[in-house]
Amino acid sequence: MQIAILGATGYTGLEVVRLLQHHEQAEVTYVSSDSQAGAHLADVYPHLRGVLAHTLEVADPVEIAKRADYALVALPSGVSTNVVPGLLAAGVRVIDLAGDHRLPSAVYAAWYQKTPPSSSVLASAIYGLPELYADQIADAKLIANPGCYPTATLLSLLPLVKHGLIDPQSLIIDAKSGLSGAGKALSAGTHFVEVHENFKAYKVGEHQHIPEIEQVLTDVNPSGEPVTISFTTHLVPMIRGILTTSYAKLTGSYSTEDLLAVYREFYRNAPFVRLHAAGHWPQTRDVTASNYCDIGLRVDPRTQRVTVIGAIDNLVKGAGGQAIQNLNLLAGLAQTTGLTTAPVYL
Amino acid sequence: MQIAILGATGYTGLEVVRLLQHHEQAEVTYVSSDSQAGAHLADVYPHLRGVLAHTLEVADPVEIAKRADYALVALPSGVSTNVVPGLLAAGVRVIDLAGDHRLPSAVYAAWYQKTPPSSSVLASAIYGLPELYADQIADAKLIANPGCYPTATLLSLLPLVKHGLIDPQSLIIDAKSGLSGAGKALSAGTHFVEVHENFKAYKVGEHQHIPEIEQVLTDVNPSGEPVTISFTTHLVPMIRGILTTSYAKLTGSYSTEDLLAVYREFYRNAPFVRLHAAGHWPQTRDVTASNYCDIGLRVDPRTQRVTVIGAIDNLVKGAGGQAIQNLNLLAGLAQTTGLTTAPVYL
Amino acid sequence: MQIAILGATGYTGLEVVRLLQHHEQAEVTYVSSDSQAGAHLADVYPHLRGVLAHTLEVADPVEIAKRADYALVALPSGVSTNVVPGLLAAGVRVIDLAGDHRLPSAVYAAWYQKTPPSSSVLASAIYGLPELYADQIADAKLIANPGCYPTATLLSLLPLVKHGLIDPQSLIIDAKSGLSGAGKALSAGTHFVEVHENFKAYKVGEHQHIPEIEQVLTDVNPSGEPVTISFTTHLVPMIRGILTTSYAKLTGSYSTEDLLAVYREFYRNAPFVRLHAAGHWPQTRDVTASNYCDIGLRVDPRTQRVTVIGAIDNLVKGAGGQAIQNLNLLAGLAQTTGLTTAPVYL
Amino acid sequence: MQIAILGATGYTGLEVVRLLQHHEQAEVTYVSSDSQAGAHLADVYPHLRGVLAHTLEVADPVEIAKRADYALVALPSGVSTNVVPGLLAAGVRVIDLAGDHRLPSAVYAAWYQKTPPSSSVLASAIYGLPELYADQIADAKLIANPGCYPTATLLSLLPLVKHGLIDPQSLIIDAKSGLSGAGKALSAGTHFVEVHENFKAYKVGEHQHIPEIEQVLTDVNPSGEPVTISFTTHLVPMIRGILTTSYAKLTGSYSTEDLLAVYREFYRNAPFVRLHAAGHWPQTRDVTASNYCDIGLRVDPRTQRVTVIGAIDNLVKGAGGQAIQNLNLLAGLAQTTGLTTAPVYL
Repeated sequence: MQIAILGATGYTGLEVVRLLQHHEQAEVTYVSSDSQAGAHLADVYPHLRGVLAHTLEVADPVEIAKRADYALVALPSGVSTNVVPGLLAAGVRVIDLAGDHRLPSAVYAAWYQKTPPSSSVLASAIYGLPELYADQIADAKLIANPGCYPTATLLSLLPLVKHGLIDPQSLIIDAKSGLSGAGKALSAGTHFVEVHENFKAYKVGEHQHIPEIEQVLTDVNPSGEPVTISFTTHLVPMIRGILTTSYAKLTGSYSTEDLLAVYREFYRNAPFVRLHAAGHWPQTRDVTASNYCDIGLRVDPRTQRVTVIGAIDNLVKGAGGQAIQNLNLLAGLAQTTGLTTAPVYL
Repeated sequence: MQIAILGATGYTGLEVVRLLQHHEQAEVTYVSSDSQAGAHLADVYPHLRGVLAHTLEVADPVEIAKRADYALVALPSGVSTNVVPGLLAAGVRVIDLAGDHRLPSAVYAAWYQKTPPSSSVLASAIYGLPELYADQIADAKLIANPGCYPTATLLSLLPLVKHGLIDPQSLIIDAKSGLSGAGKALSAGTHFVEVHENFKAYKVGEHQHIPEIEQVLTDVNPSGEPVTISFTTHLVPMIRGILTTSYAKLTGSYSTEDLLAVYREFYRNAPFVRLHAAGHWPQTRDVTASNYCDIGLRVDPRTQRVTVIGAIDNLVKGAGGQAIQNLNLLAGLAQTTGLTTAPVYL
Repeated sequence: MQIAILGATGYTGLEVVRLLQHHEQAEVTYVSSDSQAGAHLADVYPHLRGVLAHTLEVADPVEIAKRADYALVALPSGVSTNVVPGLLAAGVRVIDLAGDHRLPSAVYAAWYQKTPPSSSVLASAIYGLPELYADQIADAKLIANPGCYPTATLLSLLPLVKHGLIDPQSLIIDAKSGLSGAGKALSAGTHFVEVHENFKAYKVGEHQHIPEIEQVLTDVNPSGEPVTISFTTHLVPMIRGILTTSYAKLTGSYSTEDLLAVYREFYRNAPFVRLHAAGHWPQTRDVTASNYCDIGLRVDPRTQRVTVIGAIDNLVKGAGGQAIQNLNLLAGLAQTTGLTTAPVYL
Repeated sequence: MQIAILGATGYTGLEVVRLLQHHEQAEVTYVSSDSQAGAHLADVYPHLRGVLAHTLEVADPVEIAKRADYALVALPSGVSTNVVPGLLAAGVRVIDLAGDHRLPSAVYAAWYQKTPPSSSVLASAIYGLPELYADQIADAKLIANPGCYPTATLLSLLPLVKHGLIDPQSLIIDAKSGLSGAGKALSAGTHFVEVHENFKAYKVGEHQHIPEIEQVLTDVNPSGEPVTISFTTHLVPMIRGILTTSYAKLTGSYSTEDLLAVYREFYRNAPFVRLHAAGHWPQTRDVTASNYCDIGLRVDPRTQRVTVIGAIDNLVKGAGGQAIQNLNLLAGLAQTTGLTTAPVYL
């Protein structure tokens, strides 16, 4: 199959390029960067000299349709909206890694402060979390690839909410991310001297990924009641990795082993979710450069709360790797195709 | 006044040495290290060549009493117990930076897995959180200097609990620390290659600082009911700094400004607590190498929970700086004596 | 072909395991760790759960010979000596990543302060720098895989020395390495708190890689005269990467372009050496997790000296990747087999 | 004495503010930032809340002259030129931390690509390296405070060159710096993701500090011959610190001890130069946040070259601390006034 990557010079696009090099059934035939069209990708990123020979082009839907079956759109939120309709109209199946097609229009407008996509395009979008929606994904024309924080959070919590094991209104999620999640744009907040030897919270209770998480949790909530969460994001002085620590009140007196059994069953067909035995915990390094999501949990007998910790690589399972997992589903391939390389632990 | 520093070559002891250099009314007359007695401190730590000329000695209480009025004990938990009784018997007033004298015997034994100090010594110990117990501290013979996590957590939460503004049983505290808190001992967990570009949790719900926090929150709880918290600790790939993110259910419909007003009043005489205006948040760099505790908070109208973030330097307000603050109280000096230098932001 | 990896739990061994996962013609049939024999590799390194299912075994040459054609020995210097003779006797072709078989006995003893291998074994060893000795490597029974610093240094300098373009006695090499080169052993020098936000030199002029570099430079020196270098090693607070900055006096008035032309010719068949155009320079990130060696150079018209900068990943081209490159030569495969994945730039 | 700080919000200006807080005889009466005039310094840098209460002003020479005896100008090179003449005309003694007044006009224009200052102002400038020019500094109206790289390099090499112990034309200096030296301006080269886990060279042989170093080495060269050096700069992924590794050919058969004796004599009255005994070496952490320059050296008997390593904090001895050392000389105070606090090792 032939693949176009739009926005190939951003951190997410660049990771899609790297990951697809491992994919034996995908050929990258089009890489776009409107701002650097005409340049060789390997001149922009010298680490690719001798490895990849792509030339950057402008994102022209008609031209893309001639040369690609699938488009992975790694453009910023608010920009992918402009290009996705043309791709769909030209018959290209689209995986959008931006936030534009994940939320109802009004919710998107309120949390992103941007113009939402047209309702007809939005109606065709499927939320691309394969561990929950694999069936719908397979037939989709447009996949809204999940955000990085939602991926780690949802995979950590879905079994508990879906099976009514916790009070979803009690959910508190404390999330931490490396800097690559902030993207390549320059700002005081990404200057090395400001970030190194520092730890801080940002967008406390106001991160745009909150409604995305709540929407999916509500979808699986047995009571149907809308779930509202407390959610705080922090910046870790490292490049890759997200770790979420989630807390919730149990609805019964379950043990750690009880809950782990539920998780094992829930994820028995999920090749990228790895559960830790009781007493062991994920760390971001264990999933670096891989599509795994590692999860550990513990029931605290003192408080009757459960603590769940999830770790992903924000650029892989939280972005480009999950996009390829979705691509595999679209193409009828095994989810793991091209995604089985070991994490780069060191 | 003349000061002895016991355990001067550990990270905490070394920080006490550094901080007392700024104290115009304290003279360090005795520095101990049982394992390196006889060596010059500046040969162990070459950064001190030409700055300090101390020779390390064994910790002999009788000899210490001849040359010092106060002893700051920066020995590991379980070790300070052995030396504190002799110091007290010799008439030296003691500030113990270890965990040995902070908890009732049975609680200490259960959480530290070590032999507790004698009950008579323990009975004389005052918990050295100046923002809460300044009066008792002034007259004490033995100060149990608070732990690093409890300091950041308690300063973040005391106004809310004391004034009944939150349900204390709803408290969830997500804490993050730099590596200096783990001390100088070698372990796989402190190897640079294992720590760098990594983020992880540890001792989830089982950290020995939990009962210390609960004891003080219970002490200020208007209902008198024992407070039980959820508490998780994480390691940040940096040297200094603790940041705690705390969540609790409000008992009424208070605004962010309402709560900030309570904090301002509560800390009106606390020179080291700095409150952020609504919408601004602490970061660890803002307090590096200083005795400040920076606090920010926000009421989330969506969940009726409050999020409070506190930041300290774990080696200063979380250890050596707070010890000097207590020393000042013991000596009848202003709390800020020797502690007014600006944070080393860069 | 079937491969045994000895010392699989050290940083170098672990990297060989990771890299061979990409090698379509190699099957790892034996992984050894004397200290952790019996354990599952994925229990020692949880990032490998679900990826690799090897069980660690003791390094038994006879058993290895039954199950493997080639052994990659990633044991410490001084230890590989003990196991290599048995492997050779059992008919296994060996690539030794330690320093034991790179130097004449007396030189090894002097610089490593260890007992050298037997002279008969040593006589059969070929120095495994494929860019220089590919022909001899193909027929070897025992490959002495080059050290990390020598690899970067030699690839940076071979064209200049071999073609008499510099005075080899004027060579000064200033080398910098990440911490993974120091290995997994615990020491004050690898404690996170000692390494982070710090830069220092070590073994100034006394590093054991000096005679290895001098031996090869002497081998290509047109005059045949022994080459003696100034060589200083430094530690960079990062995990992976070596960058060497070399300086030498030119023997004639060559321009930057003249020298680059010589390099292009010298390395025209070297798939892993990438040359930068004048004015562009290598950085360690450009080669991370890959087998590339990036080189840039400049003639300084003010001093008539040339500055050459080389960058490698110390664990790949400086160890495990080069071992696989040598394995490919032994097996008659293309040098690049299994080594073509893109650097992990982010 | 009353002090104005111009450019107080840059990294260097901010460090001057921090350091002067320790100076018992200096009062900061004026802090300028043209771009943020009117703001409180503590609103721009929240770590200063409760510590300092300065309001930023525009840099008005006449107004400055009313309120300050001395101006420390921490503006960018090319900008200080615009303000220094007005300050001098108004009777303010000036220490310029930019590069504008260190070089002859033609040399400055060639290496900085900027318009040089007027020749009359330049004629009055004294190069502010107290270890060499203390006498001239004391009477100066205008001090050109040395650059960060020149300070570390010159202090490492002055005794050798001045006493004819090396061939100055053989000098090769390999320099490494943390990121704070690059300043606060945003660029791809200071983005955390580009810097972290990376090491690279920049401005190879072309750094604007080269002529500054050569000028002073020429000044002390017994032969009077102009000294030309090879000089390469590298970026270390850390915030503070410069380490220079210098190599030169000895003019006679001196031992390490011979040379150390010369250094001890040369620096016998230099309170900030600390020499390491043979076999011990500087590291950047040993001088962090202090005005020390640590130096170690070794004669290599194999090559008859000497290797000298020097370490400074680029923001202190390499900028703001040295400026205060010069201020002390201007004011007739001991050089160490306000500069005796211990390095912040941790």
